[in-house]
Amino acid sequence: MSLKLYCDLISQPSRTLYILLKTAKYNFEPKYVKLAKAEHYSEEFTTQVNRMQRVPVIDHNGFLLTESVAIVKYLAREKIIPESLYPVDSKQQARVDEFLEWHHIGLRLHCTTYFRVKYMDPLFGKKMEEDQLAGYERRMVQALDVFDKKWLGQGTEFVVGNKVTVADLFAATELEQPRMAGYDPKEHYPAIATWAKKVQAHFNPHYDEAHVILNKIVKKQQSANL
Amino acid sequence: MSLKLYCDLISQPSRTLYILLKTAKYNFEPKYVKLAKAEHYSEEFTTQVNRMQRVPVIDHNGFLLTESVAIVKYLAREKIIPESLYPVDSKQQARVDEFLEWHHIGLRLHCTTYFRVKYMDPLFGKKMEEDQLAGYERRMVQALDVFDKKWLGQGTEFVVGNKVTVADLFAATELEQPRMAGYDPKEHYPAIATWAKKVQAHFNPHYDEAHVILNKIVKKQQSANL
Repeated sequence: MSLKLYCDLISQPSRTLYILLKTAKYNFEPKYVKLAKAEHYSEEFTTQVNRMQRVPVIDHNGFLLTESVAIVKYLAREKIIPESLYPVDSKQQARVDEFLEWHHIGLRLHCTTYFRVKYMDPLFGKKMEEDQLAGYERRMVQALDVFDKKWLGQGTEFVVGNKVTVADLFAATELEQPRMAGYDPKEHYPAIATWAKKVQAHFNPHYDEAHVILNKIVKKQQSANL
Repeated sequence: MSLKLYCDLISQPSRTLYILLKTAKYNFEPKYVKLAKAEHYSEEFTTQVNRMQRVPVIDHNGFLLTESVAIVKYLAREKIIPESLYPVDSKQQARVDEFLEWHHIGLRLHCTTYFRVKYMDPLFGKKMEEDQLAGYERRMVQALDVFDKKWLGQGTEFVVGNKVTVADLFAATELEQPRMAGYDPKEHYPAIATWAKKVQAHFNPHYDEAHVILNKIVKKQQSANL
């Protein structure tokens, strides 16, 4: 029995899966795919691992699976991650799914795009007009408003009810992403800051371990802007 | 026991759920929410049905659930839709999930946005510059290329293997959407045309029934452009 995780800890769903598997104390082999070196575009990765040229991917005894949310559900069915993080009860599971399905276009698209246009693209010499950049920031802030008020602001401690689930981990790793582009949601939304701290504590030391590279980039960016 | 489906058949995930429930011969009550009349923004809908102001939503004996993909998974667990359309086998289910999770940003975002900027926005007096519109069309075509080659072009008859699943229905209803804006993917991609015909046949007469309004709009648009 073997489980490989193709990942790059700069990618938020890669971090989610890495943290989950570490938390589950499951014996897996991380296979690092350096996105900055375009290793996900290599002939080998494209033909042997993922024709979509993305991470994360798992290889579970030869069964290759892409798409982080699909992977989490599979790992839950295979009892590799604990039931508490992805409930078996039909209605509770539906509530977690409701968030996971919403988050693709509701949250992830906007945080990722902001990170890409403000941090990644300039590294490759692509610069965007200030007003266009402001448009991307505005859309991300709108998404964060919805997350802050319509998910967190519902009187529960976590995204779904009063217990940590994978929904919190997907959201938390996502909200780390714009920090590399100089925007920290925790500094703008007190409820997000309180919640994020609890999620981080729940998944530590693995949460911090998965964010070492990201936090280094954040620090480097901050000193460059001083 | 009661199941209500809040929907508008102009919305592609609404059509997906409507067709699925009809195919399952499940006794449900459609509750039409007219998006064109902004009924989803009403106080009543927002506070009583969906704070996100969107359709589709189900009300299953008082359990309100949003997000079409989460709804389909719930309906499958509750044995309301047939197992053949959403397999119970862990690996087969993972393959269907893989597509469903990909399709949010991979396909849906682009088809929906094209439909919105080219068809919906002008109805409300909002017109876009030609070159901006061309950008949206280009991104939709890129998404269709991926669907055509990397999902359909893998040697199987349907999106996942050789049997129809909910993955096909989500994709098919999605690809109907840009037709209202004058772009029919079937006219540009022969493999999509062949596949779409099989999906339509599998879900008929309910597929056509759910597309009556959409097909009327397509015809009206075509005559206006003659």
